[in-house]
Formats: sequence, structure tokens, C-alpha cells
Amino acid sequence: MAELKNLTKRSENYSQWYNELVVKADLAEQSAVRGCMVIKPYGYAIWEKMQRQLDDMFKATGHVNAYFPLLIPKSFLSREAEHVEGFAKECAVVTHHRLKTSPDGRGVVVDPEAKLEEELIIRPTSETIIWNTYKNWIKSYRDLPILCNQWANVMRWEMRTRLFLRTAEFLWQEGHTAHATREEAEAEAVKMLNVYADFTEKYMALPVIKGVKSANERFAGALETYTIEAMMQDGKALQSGTSHFLGQNFAKAFDVQFINKENKLEYVWATSWGVSTRLMGALIMTHSDDNGLVLPPHLAPIQVVIVPIYKNDEQLRQIDAKVAGIVEKLRNRGIAVKYDNADNKRPGFKFADYELKGVPVRLAMGGRDLDNDTVELMRRDTLEKQTLPCEGIDAYVQDLLEEIQQNIYHKALAFREAQTREVNSYDEFKEEIEKGGFLLCHWDGTPETEEKIKEETKATIRCIPLDGDRTPGKCMVTGKPSAGRVIIARSY
Amino acid sequence: MAELKNLTKRSENYSQWYNELVVKADLAEQSAVRGCMVIKPYGYAIWEKMQRQLDDMFKATGHVNAYFPLLIPKSFLSREAEHVEGFAKECAVVTHHRLKTSPDGRGVVVDPEAKLEEELIIRPTSETIIWNTYKNWIKSYRDLPILCNQWANVMRWEMRTRLFLRTAEFLWQEGHTAHATREEAEAEAVKMLNVYADFTEKYMALPVIKGVKSANERFAGALETYTIEAMMQDGKALQSGTSHFLGQNFAKAFDVQFINKENKLEYVWATSWGVSTRLMGALIMTHSDDNGLVLPPHLAPIQVVIVPIYKNDEQLRQIDAKVAGIVEKLRNRGIAVKYDNADNKRPGFKFADYELKGVPVRLAMGGRDLDNDTVELMRRDTLEKQTLPCEGIDAYVQDLLEEIQQNIYHKALAFREAQTREVNSYDEFKEEIEKGGFLLCHWDGTPETEEKIKEETKATIRCIPLDGDRTPGKCMVTGKPSAGRVIIARSY
Repeated sequence: MAELKNLTKRSENYSQWYNELVVKADLAEQSAVRGCMVIKPYGYAIWEKMQRQLDDMFKATGHVNAYFPLLIPKSFLSREAEHVEGFAKECAVVTHHRLKTSPDGRGVVVDPEAKLEEELIIRPTSETIIWNTYKNWIKSYRDLPILCNQWANVMRWEMRTRLFLRTAEFLWQEGHTAHATREEAEAEAVKMLNVYADFTEKYMALPVIKGVKSANERFAGALETYTIEAMMQDGKALQSGTSHFLGQNFAKAFDVQFINKENKLEYVWATSWGVSTRLMGALIMTHSDDNGLVLPPHLAPIQVVIVPIYKNDEQLRQIDAKVAGIVEKLRNRGIAVKYDNADNKRPGFKFADYELKGVPVRLAMGGRDLDNDTVELMRRDTLEKQTLPCEGIDAYVQDLLEEIQQNIYHKALAFREAQTREVNSYDEFKEEIEKGGFLLCHWDGTPETEEKIKEETKATIRCIPLDGDRTPGKCMVTGKPSAGRVIIARSY
Repeated sequence: MAELKNLTKRSENYSQWYNELVVKADLAEQSAVRGCMVIKPYGYAIWEKMQRQLDDMFKATGHVNAYFPLLIPKSFLSREAEHVEGFAKECAVVTHHRLKTSPDGRGVVVDPEAKLEEELIIRPTSETIIWNTYKNWIKSYRDLPILCNQWANVMRWEMRTRLFLRTAEFLWQEGHTAHATREEAEAEAVKMLNVYADFTEKYMALPVIKGVKSANERFAGALETYTIEAMMQDGKALQSGTSHFLGQNFAKAFDVQFINKENKLEYVWATSWGVSTRLMGALIMTHSDDNGLVLPPHLAPIQVVIVPIYKNDEQLRQIDAKVAGIVEKLRNRGIAVKYDNADNKRPGFKFADYELKGVPVRLAMGGRDLDNDTVELMRRDTLEKQTLPCEGIDAYVQDLLEEIQQNIYHKALAFREAQTREVNSYDEFKEEIEKGGFLLCHWDGTPETEEKIKEETKATIRCIPLDGDRTPGKCMVTGKPSAGRVIIARSY
């Protein structure tokens, strides 16, 4: 309770609310290494559920997993010109391979004689090492497509870090596919964008807008970057996943050619796509409230918690016996249920703790419930309570979990829609952007205008929506022709 | 076929046979980074099955997963004196955090201004960073036990590397538990040793000997190291998993104390335990033969492959239709089946390729089978063929998979038993060790004698078996008293 009371309210300081919640709900914490986090068991259990689901979806779309080295020779990073220019400068560099006892005998120092001939970089992303590998795997069109995914840790030396949202080390998956034709690679990039959107909407209950990045915001080395953009409760955008059509850039950089059906040598076409532990940040920020986390039932490690309220051991034994039947029935329906009859914490503390941790449904059983054969149910999303008969509670809870899943999705969607509006002049834009949300604006398509908007308002073009309004208009900044509205917002 | 023909025979050169097999069977290959491997999709699919099964077993014994940082501050390694002495000197050292464009503009160089204040080490194992974290998690006996596991990559700068057996980077799991009492921690270390032995025997079909390491072979910082030792087909031992009782060493090094039930401050008791992608090496070397891999059905990504043999498209269509029913029935029994009717490879090539890849059961259907409503079955372990009616083939295959699993286990066990023998004098030992196998010897228990044996014969004490012969005797080297026989062998 003490912990919970201290949670800052969203309206007071949204950013602080988030930082506190991540720690208080036992999701993650800072480590002794600058910018690197410890993902605690409760946070990791949510990530595991996300991983498992995504992995199933990748496999269902024909992908296989593999594993490529953590370290990348420094020279690889300079092979693809745009890649090195726009990326990968802030990274962890391995220069030595041995420690030795220090002269005073009390510690260890780096052994200067163990200097590497070529420095190695901890992967910030794996296009280079993977395309260097694919070179040996691909000879003919018969070897294509290659549809590999990797679950891995990566590292980018970020200056300002925040748990899950921006950390030096993070966990992710990166798909890297190789194709015989441009069309097939483009279709793959779009297919995986759709897989991501399905996942975020159906499992995370996170509505997203699918779109294309402007040239400025593209992945370094990509011809096209597709993105899913979500809106947080403070009205800021969070890029939640990207899928890149890489053209033949990496194939050319690493000389990966194949003999096509016409018996001619051709460079291979590529995609890459990834989501990371950043999704944990999106999950937390989208649904949670001033009482703590609100987890979507499809990803909650504990979907139902049952807490006994008892006067003495005899009563606890009666409740234990009664609850055992409910637990069994819930488990038979595939529901993850925890019965918490630990005697070292009071029911009130447990209630607050499970609220903080976002458990979707709480059941409580006391003496009166025993007499009446009832149970008290609270749903986390609305905090509504009701007393229900034990008979049929399992079916009721199963339906309720689906209802909660739908409810928080629609709540997030309604919020996003309310915070999305058309803006027609730059003056209006400057006013509106202070209120947050997604602004639908006409833009002349030039990097210069985009840069000007960013400098003057700290807002960026989040994407050109795939199913947005494609009615032409005039750029709000320059008055030049615009092909259709784009989404501009401040972002994480 | 060409690939297969080139596989070196075990009797010619066992080591070369292994190296070739790993590559030809598409399990793994060397990468551009010295000592780091690429785990290819087929190899990774086997590792994933091992991971999933182990993870289920860890969870069934009350463990949870978490994730700790990849990088460890250099100073952490010197905190536990034995740990740094016996370990962790050959490791990858991160000294800088930025690259910049080189003066000639054609590449990147390390930015000398981005030197880290304290160097960071890529984890060779995580005791230090984890115990530094546990310090903040543990205040009272109520916070104990902590039963965390981590799936991660680790790095040890090995000079001589071999795919899966010894690589600079490898994948593993490391369990790190914290307990209120010595007894509980000791019991945990033994419990996890038993989990490992259950896993290797039931899933990998790998018989192991459970034992305790001698002081010389103990993990640096442990009070006791438990091990499972397996015998490869060349008679050498392979340490397949270890579980360490760490006493209070790491708790003292990182000052992790708790208030016990008597309200007194006490240091926390610890264990750690791990298995790695090295198990892939054990799996390959234990069962495979001169035709390629032999995979245990419980871990085979493809348990049954079906190959059509046809004269024309019309016949292929008939076989396709017939096989579809068999595939469905096998899938309904939870069997992983692949129907390979790709038209760019001949049946003979496919046969050899699936043999090389160790698929436990192959079904082939040709024109005569169509007429007779039969199918030809080959089991990979014995290479025996038989023709069977299609009716009931699914039940037959399901039973056969279990039989193969048992058969290869018992074959490996019989081999180990035949290659295990008592030796009573050092002269006899020197002769026998050249023939390979496990030698059961009396040893006086001193590090000096152990060292002498190692120097003179390249053999080491693999373990003091937990259920070995504890009849006292006289050391084969010094004639001093011995408490019982230990296992000595050459090893990987």
C-alpha cells in the first residue's frame, strides 16, 4: 500500500508516472551498467508471452529462426554507405580480448598485449553480418527465398535512456529475408508490417496506424521503411515496429548475387523487420492508470488472482477447499490463475499489489461468500466490483477476459481518434501540437520542410498512412502541392 | 549425394567426421568473426526444442526467467577472489562507445574521445552482475528463495574453437538462485543436476554419469561443482552440464545479507547451474554415424519425412492425394511430418539428404505402393527398411518413434558400459587410457596426484560418481588411501 500510494498521478507528471510504474510493478530496473536494464521476472514473463506469440506468427508465415554472431567486424559497417552514415556510430567497441592481474595484485587491468587486429562492434542491428553470411548460402534462385528471424540482444550507445523505451542494450527480433524479385521482397515487407499490426492489436490491445516513413525517417540503407505508430496517453507517438524494403543495397555491399531463372547473375532483394522490448513501454503506457498497470488478458502472466479473506485458520481451510474447485475449473479452460493464500500479507495489501501489477480479474472470497456460495469479482480495467455465484464463475471469467481485452483496445482506439485531427495552417499546427495527439497535415514532400517543422516544433512526420486520406492539397508550411495528409506528432 | 559421399568415416578421423557433419547437415558454420559461429536454421530448430523442454522443466521446478545486462563492469570481476583467479581473464573487453568517419572518409575508426571511464566485459558468466542486483532484491528471509534463470549469449575468448563444442560466443541458460540456508542451496544444486540428467536421458537419449568435481576442476568460486558426464563414440568424455553450490562466496563479495527468522543478519546462500549449445555437440557425437546425423525423435524438428517416387505428373497427383491422408493422421498424433514433393531434386538425393539430417523415420511411396496401398518405411537408427500397409501407419510410426528413442539411448548406454572399466595400477592406466573410455580408479584425493596424471596422460578426473563404488582402496599412483573409485578420462 505504501508503495502504491507513492505512485505519481498521470495528470501530475506522465513521464514520472511511467518511470515509477515500471519499477514499482517489478517490471525492470536500472543496472550497474549505464543505460542497460535488468528485466525482472514479472516483466520478463510478459515479454516471454509476447515472444511466444510473435514467434508462432512468424513460423505460421513460413519463417525459421537462426542465430548470428553478437560481434561485427568494424569494416563491415562501412560497406553500405548510407547504413554507416545514418547509423551505428554510437556503439560498443571491443578492442581487447584479455584481462590480467593488476600490478598491485588487487584487481584486473586490460592486457595491452591482447589488442585485436580489427576492432569488433557489438551488433546494433545485424544486416551486415547476416548479408556477409547469406553470400555463402545463395547461389541460385532455388536457394531463395531465405526467411530467417533471430531473437537477440543488440546494443546502441544511447545518451539518454529510459527503461524499455530507450536502453543501450535491448532485446528484439530481427527478420532478414532474401528474395529473387523486387516484387516478392516488397510484398514480404508489407506482410510483416501486417503481422506486427495484427499482433499489437489482437494481443497487446494496441491500435496502430500502418504507414510509410518519409525519406528523413527511413532506416539507413532502406528504400522504404514501413512503420506501425501508436499513441500514448500523453498524446505522443511511439514507433512500435518497422519493416524495411532494402532493395539490393546490402546484396551489393556484400556482393550477394544469384543465378536467376533466365540463367543470369542478379543481386538479391532484401527486407528486414524488427520489434523490441520497446513494445513493453508501449504496453505499459497505453493502458495503465493511476492505480498501476492494466494488462491485456492475452498477455497477462496471471489472468486471474484469487485472494481469501479469513478470520482464522479454520475459515481459511474452508476457503482453500472451496477455491480449489474454482482454480481447477479455470485451469481447465486454459486460464492462468493464482491463488494467493500467503499468510504474511493482509488482503488489502494483496489487492493493491495485484492492481499495481495489472492482473485483469481479481476474485475475493470471505466468510459471507462461503455461506452464500458466492465470490466477489473485480475487473482491473474499470475497477468495477460485483458479487457472483460460484456456480458458473469459470465461464463468466472466461467471457470477461475477452471483454476486457476488447474494452481496453476500444478505449485506446477511442482515445487516439479523439486526439487525431486535421490541421490546415502552420499557425494552427503550432498551437495544436502543444496539446499533443496526431495531426493530419498537408506536406509538400520535401526533407527541407520536414526539417523546418522538426526544428521549430519538435514534431516529426510519423508516417504517410497506408489507408489515409489521399486527397491532394497544399502544404501547410510552404503552400506547395501535397499528395495527401501525413501524420505529424511529437514522439518517444 | 556428392556432399554425402564426402563425409569422412568415423573410423578414419573422428574429429574430422564431426567437423564435416556439423557443416554438411546444415547445423552451424564458422562466421567472419574468429571463434563465433552461425547457428543455421536446422541446427537452431533442434536447439529451440531443447530450450523449450528445459524451460518447461525449470518452470515446473518453480523457476522464473529474467534478463540481466550483457556487459559487466571490469571491477566486478575482481570482487570474488577465486572467481577472477580461475576464470574470466580471456574475455571481450569494451573500451569505447563510438566510431567516427575515418580521415580519408572511406571507412570508420574508433573515436579516441569516446573512451569509457571503466572498461566493460562481455559476460563470460553472470554471477557478479546478478549478485550485485540481488543485493537490492533481498532484505529479509521473506524475499527468499529467489529462483531465476536467464537464457543468454555469453563470450569466452577461447583460443582453439570447434563448432558447438567450444566457441567464443555461445548460447546457454544460467540459473542463479539465492537461499536462506545452506541446506536449501545444496538441495537446489542437486535438484538441478537431476533435472539436467532427466533432460539429457529422456530427450537427448544421452546417458550421463552424475558426479562431483574434484577441487581442481571446480567452478571458480564454488564450494562444490556437480556435473553430468557423457561418453562420446571416440571414448572421450564430454562435460554436459554443471550445477554449482556457491556457498556464501558471492553474497560476501557483493555484500548480500538478509534478516533471518531469528532476526539476525546473515549472508545469502547461492547456487548457479548451466547448460549450453555445447549440448548440440554431445547430441551429434553420441548418436550419429557415417551416413550423417541420427536425431532422437523427441528433439527432431522433422520426425517423419515422406518422399514420393513417381514417373509422371499424373502419378505424383495420385501420390499427393494418398499422402495427404497420412500426413493428416500423423499430425493429429502430434508428429512433426514433412512431405517433400519438390520437383527439383531426385528421390535418391532426398533420401541421402534426410539421412544426413538425421530424420528418424522416412516413408517413401511409389507406383507399386499406390497399387498395393502400402508405403516403404526406413528407420534412421538401424537403416532397416520394410513395406507396410497404409492402414494403421500412423499408429505404427508413433510407436516406432518411441522405440527409436529408446533404442539409441540403450545403444549409447551399452557403448559407455563396454568402454568403462576398473584399472588398478598406474602402468595399466597408462596403457588403457590410450584406448579411450572411462577408467574407474582409486585416487588419493590430492590435487598433486591429479595434476601428475593430467600432465603425464592428458586425462583428468571427470567426476567422483554420486552412485559409484565407495569401497576404499589404494591410490593407483601413490598407494595412499583412497575413499573410492573416481572416473578418469580424456575429454573434450
